[in-house]
Amino acid sequence: MIHSSAIISPNSKIGRNVTVGPNCIIYDNVVIGDNTTIDAFCEIGYPTELAEGQPLIIGSGSHIRSHSVFYEGSSFDEGLVTGHRVTVREKTIAGKNLQIGTLSDFQGDCLIGDYVRTHSNVHIGKHSKVDSFVWIFPYVVLTNDPHPPSNIQMGVVVKEYAVVATMSVILPGVIVNEHSLVAAHSLVNRDVPEGMVVAGNPAKVICEAVEIKLKGLDESAYPWPSHFTRGYPSSVVSEWKSKFSR
Amino acid sequence: MIHSSAIISPNSKIGRNVTVGPNCIIYDNVVIGDNTTIDAFCEIGYPTELAEGQPLIIGSGSHIRSHSVFYEGSSFDEGLVTGHRVTVREKTIAGKNLQIGTLSDFQGDCLIGDYVRTHSNVHIGKHSKVDSFVWIFPYVVLTNDPHPPSNIQMGVVVKEYAVVATMSVILPGVIVNEHSLVAAHSLVNRDVPEGMVVAGNPAKVICEAVEIKLKGLDESAYPWPSHFTRGYPSSVVSEWKSKFSR
Amino acid sequence: MIHSSAIISPNSKIGRNVTVGPNCIIYDNVVIGDNTTIDAFCEIGYPTELAEGQPLIIGSGSHIRSHSVFYEGSSFDEGLVTGHRVTVREKTIAGKNLQIGTLSDFQGDCLIGDYVRTHSNVHIGKHSKVDSFVWIFPYVVLTNDPHPPSNIQMGVVVKEYAVVATMSVILPGVIVNEHSLVAAHSLVNRDVPEGMVVAGNPAKVICEAVEIKLKGLDESAYPWPSHFTRGYPSSVVSEWKSKFSR
Repeated sequence: MIHSSAIISPNSKIGRNVTVGPNCIIYDNVVIGDNTTIDAFCEIGYPTELAEGQPLIIGSGSHIRSHSVFYEGSSFDEGLVTGHRVTVREKTIAGKNLQIGTLSDFQGDCLIGDYVRTHSNVHIGKHSKVDSFVWIFPYVVLTNDPHPPSNIQMGVVVKEYAVVATMSVILPGVIVNEHSLVAAHSLVNRDVPEGMVVAGNPAKVICEAVEIKLKGLDESAYPWPSHFTRGYPSSVVSEWKSKFSR
Repeated sequence: MIHSSAIISPNSKIGRNVTVGPNCIIYDNVVIGDNTTIDAFCEIGYPTELAEGQPLIIGSGSHIRSHSVFYEGSSFDEGLVTGHRVTVREKTIAGKNLQIGTLSDFQGDCLIGDYVRTHSNVHIGKHSKVDSFVWIFPYVVLTNDPHPPSNIQMGVVVKEYAVVATMSVILPGVIVNEHSLVAAHSLVNRDVPEGMVVAGNPAKVICEAVEIKLKGLDESAYPWPSHFTRGYPSSVVSEWKSKFSR
Repeated sequence: MIHSSAIISPNSKIGRNVTVGPNCIIYDNVVIGDNTTIDAFCEIGYPTELAEGQPLIIGSGSHIRSHSVFYEGSSFDEGLVTGHRVTVREKTIAGKNLQIGTLSDFQGDCLIGDYVRTHSNVHIGKHSKVDSFVWIFPYVVLTNDPHPPSNIQMGVVVKEYAVVATMSVILPGVIVNEHSLVAAHSLVNRDVPEGMVVAGNPAKVICEAVEIKLKGLDESAYPWPSHFTRGYPSSVVSEWKSKFSR
């Protein structure tokens, strides 16, 4: 299941039943779990001194799509799924079943929870902290430098179940609290309170998330796990049922 | 004209005088028209169950530039031209002479007219409908989910000759009507009336498009086919001459 | 140091101690300086008639990361460094030690000074002029067409030491003057005065850059060379010491 054109370092540690596509490059300092698929044209474990010798660890049951680049020194729990041409740099620690959209760019030194989803072309700045069950939509940027360029990096924090909609920028050090929603095309320059919706440039609180109704229904669209469960394991969904049912 | 390092499925149907670059991968369920060029490092017909067995059809006289990924289940009429690293997912039906800019990402289930142009890094959400002669500029996002994440998808509609300028977001279900112009960096949360210019966050109508003059001239810049004809066939241009001359 | 799977035109001119990674393609009309590294899956010197026969020149001591595409007809002085999947089209002339971030897209016909840095996913429109020591952050777009689509191109000018923060759009023909700062998520529709900060949509002057203090310190964050020197040669840093010390 390793394509003959793939270039695999003999020092890499590759699990059972791993598929590696044409022309892939797997470098030295890499550990790949069982039952993982890596598509064509990927670079896995791209060397960098910034990793300080730490390996790249890809959990079991993962699928990395074509043209992606992962640096050494990051670690992903089981069930990582990516789109195409993803970049992930060193020293990011991610939980299980992270989904990274096509063209997304994780800059490194990040802490990512379980079941996080980023859609296409999301930019996660260095030192970001993204908790479990967060959703981040296309062209969102999490920044870190309060007065660029400088040596000070204040990562953004996005807390559980928060949602950041497309083309929004979160300024350095801002906390996006649990169950909040950042509307599309917003510039967020202060903390987003728990369960609130912010919008605009600069973003202001406009309502509670729970006030937003599902289209055509008299039912709240948030917290979103009350109606959206696609792609989550049944253990999570049944926990949500007791937690978020109305 | 098929490079020796390309990997071509014997089940694919490849026309006459087709060029396939180094390291390209062409999967099973693919039909490629005559006189088409596919550059290096492309994946053509990437398999997905979501295509439900439909093939990827690339019309004749097309040119797909390097590092692009096309899923099975979409169809393009003749004269498709792309930049580099384009992604097109399943079940998009496109007319002739579509031009897709570098890094653009078509999410699938879209309906695209003839002679549509997207510049670099355009994101076309699922269920978008983009009519003929539309222009979409860099970093524009056509969205579809009114309360993300959810199971409801309301595609954007962009009508003939409309123009969406750079870094604008069109919210779900919005109709951008004929000959309108969405100015740069706008958030469009309601329908754009025919022939009008909208700008801002949220976008408001600011004038009629016909009021915008060509730089240094006492001549309207819109409708744009009155002065801009580069890259269109003479049959189209002569039709425009009678339709849009002043 | 040329990988056996790389495809190198015998007409290209490759200096001493050059490393070329797996599956790279180097076309005919290319000159590569000594001690340069080109990673896997790059296309170097992609042919285009628009180059009018001019070669692609990559200065010595450069490093082009994987999946990048450089067209023929551009020229880079020594010490070019790029991220992954960079695109640079024809007829761009750049000074020394240009750093181009992952996914950035230079559209061609640009003039770039020395020590310019673009972060990830920056779009430099045709006919842009970016002077020495400029910083451009992720998802910034420099535009050029005042009434798209048209045949008129008015490039943006960004002058020495100016900084454009993330997700900002600079409209055609605008001059961003020396030592100014465009705040994140701005739409800039008029010239930015020297040393001033602009923000918003449309962007307005909000203060002098020198009024912004470094976090936790009673010291100006601008001009940034007074405190940020990482990655610049000692000759530059010592010149800055006399010029920008306080």
